[in-house]
Amino acid sequence: MFTIFLLCSTIPEISAVGYPINVWPKPTTFLWTRPQAILLSPNFTFSHPNHPYLTAAVNRYLRQVLTEHHDPLVKPRLNLTSALPLSSLIITITDVTSPLTHGVNESYTLTIPSSGSSNATLSAHTVWGALRGLETFSQLVYSRPSIVASGLYISDVPLFMHRGVVLDTSRNYYPVEDLLRLIKAMSMNKLNVFHWHITDSHSFPVVLPLEPELAGKGAYGEEMKYTAEDVKRVVEFGMEYGVRIVPEIDMPAHTGSWAEAYPEIVTCANMFWWPAEVEWADRFASEPGTGQLNPLNPKTYEVVKNVINDVATMFPDSFYHAGADEILPNCWKVDPSIQTFLSKNGTLSQILEMFVNSTLPHITSLNRTVIYWEDVLLDSSIKVSPSVLPPENVILHTWNNGPNNIKKVVESGYRVIVSSSDFYYLDCGHGGFLGNDSQYDQPPGTDPGNGGSWCEPFKTWQTIYNYDITYGLNETESKLVLGGEVALWSEQADSTVMDPRIWPRASAMAEALWSGNRDETGKKRYAEATDRLNEWRYRMVTRGIGAEPIQPLWCVKNPGMCNTVHPFRQWLKHYGPGTEMKPERKDMQRLQIG
Amino acid sequence: MFTIFLLCSTIPEISAVGYPINVWPKPTTFLWTRPQAILLSPNFTFSHPNHPYLTAAVNRYLRQVLTEHHDPLVKPRLNLTSALPLSSLIITITDVTSPLTHGVNESYTLTIPSSGSSNATLSAHTVWGALRGLETFSQLVYSRPSIVASGLYISDVPLFMHRGVVLDTSRNYYPVEDLLRLIKAMSMNKLNVFHWHITDSHSFPVVLPLEPELAGKGAYGEEMKYTAEDVKRVVEFGMEYGVRIVPEIDMPAHTGSWAEAYPEIVTCANMFWWPAEVEWADRFASEPGTGQLNPLNPKTYEVVKNVINDVATMFPDSFYHAGADEILPNCWKVDPSIQTFLSKNGTLSQILEMFVNSTLPHITSLNRTVIYWEDVLLDSSIKVSPSVLPPENVILHTWNNGPNNIKKVVESGYRVIVSSSDFYYLDCGHGGFLGNDSQYDQPPGTDPGNGGSWCEPFKTWQTIYNYDITYGLNETESKLVLGGEVALWSEQADSTVMDPRIWPRASAMAEALWSGNRDETGKKRYAEATDRLNEWRYRMVTRGIGAEPIQPLWCVKNPGMCNTVHPFRQWLKHYGPGTEMKPERKDMQRLQIG
Repeated sequence: MFTIFLLCSTIPEISAVGYPINVWPKPTTFLWTRPQAILLSPNFTFSHPNHPYLTAAVNRYLRQVLTEHHDPLVKPRLNLTSALPLSSLIITITDVTSPLTHGVNESYTLTIPSSGSSNATLSAHTVWGALRGLETFSQLVYSRPSIVASGLYISDVPLFMHRGVVLDTSRNYYPVEDLLRLIKAMSMNKLNVFHWHITDSHSFPVVLPLEPELAGKGAYGEEMKYTAEDVKRVVEFGMEYGVRIVPEIDMPAHTGSWAEAYPEIVTCANMFWWPAEVEWADRFASEPGTGQLNPLNPKTYEVVKNVINDVATMFPDSFYHAGADEILPNCWKVDPSIQTFLSKNGTLSQILEMFVNSTLPHITSLNRTVIYWEDVLLDSSIKVSPSVLPPENVILHTWNNGPNNIKKVVESGYRVIVSSSDFYYLDCGHGGFLGNDSQYDQPPGTDPGNGGSWCEPFKTWQTIYNYDITYGLNETESKLVLGGEVALWSEQADSTVMDPRIWPRASAMAEALWSGNRDETGKKRYAEATDRLNEWRYRMVTRGIGAEPIQPLWCVKNPGMCNTVHPFRQWLKHYGPGTEMKPERKDMQRLQIG
Repeated sequence: MFTIFLLCSTIPEISAVGYPINVWPKPTTFLWTRPQAILLSPNFTFSHPNHPYLTAAVNRYLRQVLTEHHDPLVKPRLNLTSALPLSSLIITITDVTSPLTHGVNESYTLTIPSSGSSNATLSAHTVWGALRGLETFSQLVYSRPSIVASGLYISDVPLFMHRGVVLDTSRNYYPVEDLLRLIKAMSMNKLNVFHWHITDSHSFPVVLPLEPELAGKGAYGEEMKYTAEDVKRVVEFGMEYGVRIVPEIDMPAHTGSWAEAYPEIVTCANMFWWPAEVEWADRFASEPGTGQLNPLNPKTYEVVKNVINDVATMFPDSFYHAGADEILPNCWKVDPSIQTFLSKNGTLSQILEMFVNSTLPHITSLNRTVIYWEDVLLDSSIKVSPSVLPPENVILHTWNNGPNNIKKVVESGYRVIVSSSDFYYLDCGHGGFLGNDSQYDQPPGTDPGNGGSWCEPFKTWQTIYNYDITYGLNETESKLVLGGEVALWSEQADSTVMDPRIWPRASAMAEALWSGNRDETGKKRYAEATDRLNEWRYRMVTRGIGAEPIQPLWCVKNPGMCNTVHPFRQWLKHYGPGTEMKPERKDMQRLQIG
């Protein structure tokens, strides 16, 4: 302990983990007395306990460290010592049987000696912690011939257990190869949950053995389906990369595509979403693509139970996302049986409760924890009583009103997953997708407004990085926050933009949820994070992930020169409204006070 | 004439050009009595006059029409008649010698008979008009085996002569293959000017024979240069596709990269762009990357003249873009010779005039028309007198204040090219790129603001489509508006995002500048344009251009269902502030009144 303390106090942590070498997300503890490196032996091997997924990962990382030859944009200021090359890393695992599931221990320690005369060691409680450590090790290797940072000790453990990405494969379809590449990139960033929003009103791409007609008629086309084999491949791939696959079959709303096979169980299907002369509150869907399952039709439950059974069979994860967002009164009200129910003093919330009571116990009986979107509890019009949502079986997923809704959910005693749209929605800021939208038909010179995106503006990596998902919560409440998920809704995304829309912005969340967004003094780590993320983005690109650039290359090559050193508020005080020194409009715009 | 009038009045133009078949940009005149199609003979040929670039284009289009087999998302409602397959299209050109230059006649007429017993004909005044017609013809061919829309007559001519894309290859580098793909996609959209913003303060990628050290030291790296051979390839490729290449070597500002080779001719190079305690007006550059050429140093002109001579040799186009934007007082003021000049009652505007007087006549002596950014005339601090900018030799390029600056420029008698940043800047809305930016360090729950982009929000395709670049001008003034260019500045763009950042938004401008953004009744053509652009985007993707999606695929398959039919202002009146019926925040956001 005494030694570690000494090391700690002599080497500022920031310089060790930033430059001269970069690991993303930044490890919790990184001790490096004398930044140096040694050769990686061409005969380098991992020694490891036997485990199918660990073996797959080890083979992958072995190939990577021997052949990647990463060429950092900023050459590390490291001495390559003449010590013996590193020839082995020994992996030890306390409990090799722990399954990949929520809350599994992902911690690890990694030691790389100053000389290859000793072995490097990676110790983890579980296989999944070892995978995280292997990723870290791979990021410490670079150059040709391969060299590795040496004389260091890393002890690492995530702040949040649940770190994910939502991808919507219904509004637009993504080939399986895209999903695999997403999982691969997630693993590089130590993200562990791919929340697959598989179906919605627009298409039903997954082929379910008990209900093949749902995809048969509801998929966009024969070549735009996920077969049982595809799903198996995705799930297996996830296991090899330490990424859980949490399926979402959104219901009872967002089910227009089900009506292609079963028109009788879907209300308001294929209606114009918001007809003329209809108030916004009375629309049939919040966007084009209408349809909600009818909870009063017994046939609905025949289909739904088949769907649940199939999904639970195909996706082994213990979390099951059951949707339940954006249920609109008028869509249900077009149905005669619902009209009758309402005329007898029934309410729409009672109808939703019937649906939840007929499906939730079935899902939990399959040993699943159910995730619902927050709407099921917080919607202003159609929602259920907390009594039908046992907190031990139910997790709520927030997307509106940032910290306010997180607070509401945890105050009610529920665990929460955070996807606040103001911070974590990756699709925002690209304009609206409606045709014939009169908001664009303005004379030029008019303020062009917000670009027509309901959740504008674009969520920058900085916005994502800085979001504190336990803001305003006490310690007990904070413990109910399992983590977060950035979300790519696909109204305006598909294969052509998947990588740059997700990366490196998901990397920003990945670090914030792994080791936080503050330095050891509690300050947000801006300038340092920018340079590191930039370098990391380039490494992701060379690894085949089309992450978008966050700065000119010049900035990476000239660290610190692309910073701003002016506190924004101070600047505002100078040039704010009413002062004499008001700059030109274009200058004001450059500084965000236009 | 009488016959044509009859055709015109019986078939509404909108249905003929929208569905059942799509040509983008929409032709000026499209007559189609009875929408039908005939087979394209497997032995189909073009007959054409001899011309190297026309021959290259014909070979390309022949391959395309025989092998593309485009499968429209919405199956055209066309009868495939049993008439003889079309076996030939005869191209006639009035003046085969007209060079590809500004103002060249791009009009054409295309006739496809009802039966292949006659030939199709394409008549144009020039080779370049024929290229536009060939593109139209290619878009009328689809399916497997290839069929072609038949029994139609198209007469087409652009509204604006100058229709371009600016790409900045200095902030980040793009491989030559990207530039060729850009030119190819431009040609598909009948865009005719690639304005290549080659150099800036960040890197100097082009290798100039007389000044090889500029790239030798100023490029990002050996593999990030454009050699003379690369440039030749780009220029030749442009000729084959009917796209002019207009080079821009920005100066005297935006020249920090020149200082790597010639530190003595650049003021304020490699300084921190906006130091602490310095007012915004006194910054050294408007973004990181400082440096301006010193007009008082004779050595400057030795280098600049070599640069101009080389560029004029490498780029045959008669337009030469000479930059002249964003000159900052304090960058020049750090130089002792400039300080001396100012102390003798000289002004910075005089210094700029010296620079213009020493370079503009040299460029015009090489038979070039010079384009300057508007700043040279309109900047509030450093600008020249109109007397040194002869309107017959100088075109101004606007980027600030939308129609206001266009008006100012044409009122001064100059021709103008429009790139108003509020409408045509493709990089906007992706956040700021500065490190250490305190505007992001706000407690969550705070309005996340505009995303930190100086020219936010994102310019949607609708914003671009609807921009009327002659708004508020009289007829004489309107004639001075040569056209427009959408611009991709590359601080946050490179290869990974080039295609989706440019397409299909540049297609929106392409149609607005070719045949306008209104239907024959003068109404903006929204819903119809959305469906057509969506379909066109898919065709571009299958042609290898990674254009981003603008809607769920569902919308293309369900034409009209993704429209909105509510006038925005009417909706606002209903739910505006102070009313009882205020919807929830998320709903308000969806409808843009958050």
